Amino acid sequence: MRKPITTSLILTAILGIGPIHAQTATTAAPAAGPSDLERRFDGLIDAAEMTGWMKTMTAEPNQVGSPHDRANAEMVLGLFKDWGWDAHIETFRVLYPTPISETLELTAPARFKATLTEPPIPGDESTYRMQNALPAYVAYQGDGDVTAPLVYVNYGMKEDYDALERLGVSVKGKIVIARYGVGWRGLKPKLAQQHGAVGCIIYSDPRDDGYTAEDAYPKGSARPPQGFQRGSVADMTLYPGDPLTPGVGATENAQRLAIKDSPVILKIPVLPISYSDAQHFLAALDGRVVPPQWRGSLPITYHVGGGGAVQAHIAVKSDWSLKPIYDVVATIPGTANPDQWVMRGNHHDGWVDGAEDPMSGQVALLAEAKAIGTLVKQGWRPKRTLVYLSWDAEEPMLLGSTEWAEQHADELKQKGLIYINTDGTSRGFLSAEGSHSLQHVINEIAANVTDPETGVSILARKRAQLEVIGTNPGANEEARENAKIAADPSKDIPIGALGSGSDYSAFLQHLGLPAVNLAFGAEGSVGGVYHSAYDTFEFYTRIADPGLRYSRALAQAAGTLALRFADADVPPQRYGDFADTVAGYLNEVKKLADTRRDAADMQAKMLASNAFHLVDDPGKSSGPPDALKPVPHFNFAPLENAVDRLKKSAKAYDAALAQRAAKLSPKTRSELFAMTRETEETLAPDVGLPGRTWYKNLMYAPGSLTGYAAKTMPAVREAIEQERWDDADRYVAITAAALQAYSDKLDRAVQLMGTAQTTAAR
Amino acid sequence: MRKPITTSLILTAILGIGPIHAQTATTAAPAAGPSDLERRFDGLIDAAEMTGWMKTMTAEPNQVGSPHDRANAEMVLGLFKDWGWDAHIETFRVLYPTPISETLELTAPARFKATLTEPPIPGDESTYRMQNALPAYVAYQGDGDVTAPLVYVNYGMKEDYDALERLGVSVKGKIVIARYGVGWRGLKPKLAQQHGAVGCIIYSDPRDDGYTAEDAYPKGSARPPQGFQRGSVADMTLYPGDPLTPGVGATENAQRLAIKDSPVILKIPVLPISYSDAQHFLAALDGRVVPPQWRGSLPITYHVGGGGAVQAHIAVKSDWSLKPIYDVVATIPGTANPDQWVMRGNHHDGWVDGAEDPMSGQVALLAEAKAIGTLVKQGWRPKRTLVYLSWDAEEPMLLGSTEWAEQHADELKQKGLIYINTDGTSRGFLSAEGSHSLQHVINEIAANVTDPETGVSILARKRAQLEVIGTNPGANEEARENAKIAADPSKDIPIGALGSGSDYSAFLQHLGLPAVNLAFGAEGSVGGVYHSAYDTFEFYTRIADPGLRYSRALAQAAGTLALRFADADVPPQRYGDFADTVAGYLNEVKKLADTRRDAADMQAKMLASNAFHLVDDPGKSSGPPDALKPVPHFNFAPLENAVDRLKKSAKAYDAALAQRAAKLSPKTRSELFAMTRETEETLAPDVGLPGRTWYKNLMYAPGSLTGYAAKTMPAVREAIEQERWDDADRYVAITAAALQAYSDKLDRAVQLMGTAQTTAAR
Repeated sequence: MRKPITTSLILTAILGIGPIHAQTATTAAPAAGPSDLERRFDGLIDAAEMTGWMKTMTAEPNQVGSPHDRANAEMVLGLFKDWGWDAHIETFRVLYPTPISETLELTAPARFKATLTEPPIPGDESTYRMQNALPAYVAYQGDGDVTAPLVYVNYGMKEDYDALERLGVSVKGKIVIARYGVGWRGLKPKLAQQHGAVGCIIYSDPRDDGYTAEDAYPKGSARPPQGFQRGSVADMTLYPGDPLTPGVGATENAQRLAIKDSPVILKIPVLPISYSDAQHFLAALDGRVVPPQWRGSLPITYHVGGGGAVQAHIAVKSDWSLKPIYDVVATIPGTANPDQWVMRGNHHDGWVDGAEDPMSGQVALLAEAKAIGTLVKQGWRPKRTLVYLSWDAEEPMLLGSTEWAEQHADELKQKGLIYINTDGTSRGFLSAEGSHSLQHVINEIAANVTDPETGVSILARKRAQLEVIGTNPGANEEARENAKIAADPSKDIPIGALGSGSDYSAFLQHLGLPAVNLAFGAEGSVGGVYHSAYDTFEFYTRIADPGLRYSRALAQAAGTLALRFADADVPPQRYGDFADTVAGYLNEVKKLADTRRDAADMQAKMLASNAFHLVDDPGKSSGPPDALKPVPHFNFAPLENAVDRLKKSAKAYDAALAQRAAKLSPKTRSELFAMTRETEETLAPDVGLPGRTWYKNLMYAPGSLTGYAAKTMPAVREAIEQERWDDADRYVAITAAALQAYSDKLDRAVQLMGTAQTTAAR
Repeated sequence: MRKPITTSLILTAILGIGPIHAQTATTAAPAAGPSDLERRFDGLIDAAEMTGWMKTMTAEPNQVGSPHDRANAEMVLGLFKDWGWDAHIETFRVLYPTPISETLELTAPARFKATLTEPPIPGDESTYRMQNALPAYVAYQGDGDVTAPLVYVNYGMKEDYDALERLGVSVKGKIVIARYGVGWRGLKPKLAQQHGAVGCIIYSDPRDDGYTAEDAYPKGSARPPQGFQRGSVADMTLYPGDPLTPGVGATENAQRLAIKDSPVILKIPVLPISYSDAQHFLAALDGRVVPPQWRGSLPITYHVGGGGAVQAHIAVKSDWSLKPIYDVVATIPGTANPDQWVMRGNHHDGWVDGAEDPMSGQVALLAEAKAIGTLVKQGWRPKRTLVYLSWDAEEPMLLGSTEWAEQHADELKQKGLIYINTDGTSRGFLSAEGSHSLQHVINEIAANVTDPETGVSILARKRAQLEVIGTNPGANEEARENAKIAADPSKDIPIGALGSGSDYSAFLQHLGLPAVNLAFGAEGSVGGVYHSAYDTFEFYTRIADPGLRYSRALAQAAGTLALRFADADVPPQRYGDFADTVAGYLNEVKKLADTRRDAADMQAKMLASNAFHLVDDPGKSSGPPDALKPVPHFNFAPLENAVDRLKKSAKAYDAALAQRAAKLSPKTRSELFAMTRETEETLAPDVGLPGRTWYKNLMYAPGSLTGYAAKTMPAVREAIEQERWDDADRYVAITAAALQAYSDKLDRAVQLMGTAQTTAAR
């Protein structure tokens, strides 16, 4: 459900290129071509067939609870069975509210009733088949009916409320209007509610994904005037999955919270609207002109509002009954190690037709499954068990994957080797994010997948992209460093860290299993039809990825990675990448503390010298900012020692594997595979992150104030960002202990391989 | 004529805060309060009287050649005489074309005729008195009548043409439409012409100074829909002043170039238009969607155009006769050193009513002149001669000041001590740019002028501004460094370098005299009425600077600086500031060479590896960029040696002056003053800058590809930027020699002061 990778984001880490800590460790192996098996697999993927499946699956709106979503699950089940998989549907019963009525209007100074509808687009037949489509709605908002003054809050992030406070504008008792972007959708009403707002409107500004970005659909991929973005606003940063069953599967008889007690459900009504509707509200606003960073590109002067003269009325009513969801689970048992599971998933529910999100990834998964089925029919068998997963209800809050992972947690923590995720994809460049022990194998596989547009490998094209971005005159330091790495063929290109926004979350962040998310993007779409009625088969096949060539490349990359794990002799992991990456995170966190300490010191002086008052334009005066807490010096030594050891242990492991791989017994190989899982799990001790213990991974989490975007070394980093000094101290120790345990596992593996080299915890 | 300092620019060096090289040398003296004379002077400045002068002078349009401009010159002359000054009008005859007819229309695919008119604004009476106003017009464009396809070229700068070339779009034989901003107006048609365009339209995008920036006038200071920006498009970067008499005064019988031979006059027709008119042209454009940086904020998707389907027709006809201009020159002879001139100027011609530009500065100059006249009547006399100058014809191309400076060049190079300039001003923060030997005295004076809004000194408010900007999370390194300097009261805050855009140019850059430009801004206006019919008395007194409080503060600052130079015992200059600043420039230039060398190397590899082709979206393909020339290593040693010596010489001078000031004879003091002029003149040897020898100053020039913005150490810097390696080598030597001559003068001054300490050229 994360927004597609767009060109407007190509200078950011969302490319799947994270901070560049991994350049020194594992050097790229001399290009090992694909195996015979991988070559055969590739030959079995048929884009025309994928297009057919997409057409069927997007023939009608397929949101959770819709007839077509259920039909799609049944179809997928049937296909898996046809292809020889052992498949079934696993059902959960989840809280999933559905809309009964929605109203949004401006009541003063003039009256305007928001249309809240997406009209059909001539030339796109799918947009005429919207009888079963969800209206303008966001899941898990809080039903209500309020009329109140309106305030524009920019992206509705923490810093926007800080700015509002300095402007002397309170949102207490008011309705806020926020634009989509910067942070995750759900944080906007959450922060509004925390600041006392009684309602929240979220609109798509044309500057971000409308006419400013590109020609509107159907000419281009930008948002048409009346398009709006549906989505979920449950507090994913606390936990994803069913709001009533945190930590356990939402089975028929599961213990459930009362709705009113679920901490992830909002209390205020929220509606998403188009910029065509929003302009009427924004143009009416009075009060101060917005700060420069708050400007959108509607042809108006944006004002903050907040006075009583402009009033809005928002009313939302929902059906809060439990609904069934349908996960399709398909397996091919491993011959040598049936209890080692290679998992591969993509969701099948959309917000409307969902051609790009999720069907472009769903049909890739189906193509892989069919090809694997054919290989099996031809006599091949995987050494380890393949588990293919077609999730339901990802959109509302990763429900299908989370409930399944929670339900099978114990088994997965014993058997799961890797979880490989995809979601929407489109034309462009590879984006790979995941556990950094997987960085090298992802580079290897990317070197063997041909880019449909250029004929070079998707790795070579990615390298070219990083070089071009990083040598742009406006490139930041990270981009410049990435360009240097990309230009050096002896170095692997770094993968990004995973935050949230798709079905890997429970596997990586709750269970601590290795996980990866793969996608293509940055050419096919600026994201203007995302979660709207315009993400149709016509849109996808004419604009986002004609011929499904990148959807096919995604099947090739994800499927090859699954096969590699299912069939390899020794684990594909390399740990030098991880060690260097973590060393980089630690440097960032230390620098963060220093930077914030300097900022707090400087600000204290400025508050004392009245500097903020002195720069004030008396016609537009602002209060001083809230005083930053003085930042102490932290004892980072435990982490520094743990990272030093990790580097040694990782180096020893990688070296031992390189030396000894060919000489190991089947039993040792099997044990090594099991140890990759155990090693990764050390990063997710039961203690969890401060204040949100569902998230257990101490290396990767969605940011509690950014949403989808990853925070690395999150417990320590966010403690510093959020001025929780005790948590910082405590989690330095906890994170260091986890890294020591990680090194212990690596050392044990080195012993297993029969080399004497070990390192010791200090 | 430079655009007012606006809030949108507050993160840039246009604040008058240049690169921060000057923090270590001269530390701020313990606050020396104003002298008795300065206190009396201040008491004589009357904002109400200034308001009255402004009302009279802005009562009608007062562009060059208008009856009211002449009347204003006569009025200023009369006032000077009334106040006891020896005053006269000096007349030059200059080429100044005036419009006969202008047409702009879209002829295909639909017909639209641009209005080219600025309607009156209810509530602003001045806007109803526009019978004598200039229409939409830019001076020194090339008359013509063409119909051709239209191409959008963003800001029309060099990098925009590079981007167009990669997009495969040529402007040859076409009409370009460029938006105002980034570089100086005149570069847009110049570059268009160089690339083969046959016409040029310049419009004001609402993103830059229209509704996006603020409420439009009359509610705020942003550009109303039909407002447009007049101006000059002669090639100021080659030389300013009369296009027909470069280097000499445009007297009645001066030798003149033929119009066709003047290299600064354009050959293609150009018109400025409003965004209301521009939207019709831009919305019609087809072809590729523009790159992200090219987006304005009209409610359209911007396209590059260039196909034959969209055609525009532009026709301009002008009267190219010579016209008289009227400089008012007023003097009060010095008692002790009548041949040492302290010059102070501001122009009196506007583009329409010109309330902010230039009258807000003009009435400051008048207030100073009246106060000085009163002081003289009360018995005070300056030691050195005060020369007050009310220039005509600054707007078309700095004509009044340049012709006067050229006409009196020999005398000025013998007598000129300093030229103090002002121009438009408005509410806000001090901006000071000039010769860095003046940095310390400007800090001293700024510490003695009270900010009207806060009651602290304008220096204290400036410090607060730098601290707030530099501690903003988005601040760049320069801003962060400036904040640290500003927070340290023992350090002077750096002044900026002068480029062009007002009347200091001939003094500083042609004659090599010390010069400074002072202004206030960043609160009063976003610049939306600049050079339009809406820069009226009503606008200025209601929005830009009610009560003329900052206009008054400008009179206090500029007048005090003039008095300080006219009356001081020893020169106010301090040279450590200059030495440190130049050391910083040298570091920048060396870094520039390294950065460009790395970029060229990297780009060569990328061209070889086909990286640019590989990142291409086949639906929107671009060619590779032009290959950068490999950058050799330069011998910077002569400059490094010169800078090392300069630091020592400057330190010795500052120390000697501090020790010996009180003990010097009147003759030595007089000689020291003369030496400050001679010292500065060493920076402007006759050789001039490569390809534009009118500009002689080797430290400060307007950028040949940026216009108003300064290039420091320009001959060397631009040679590297523009890949002229021979010029780089040659001008390293020439610039080093100039700095050695500068040090020679300082050493000579040290000897004069009777201390033995000298330094020697290596």
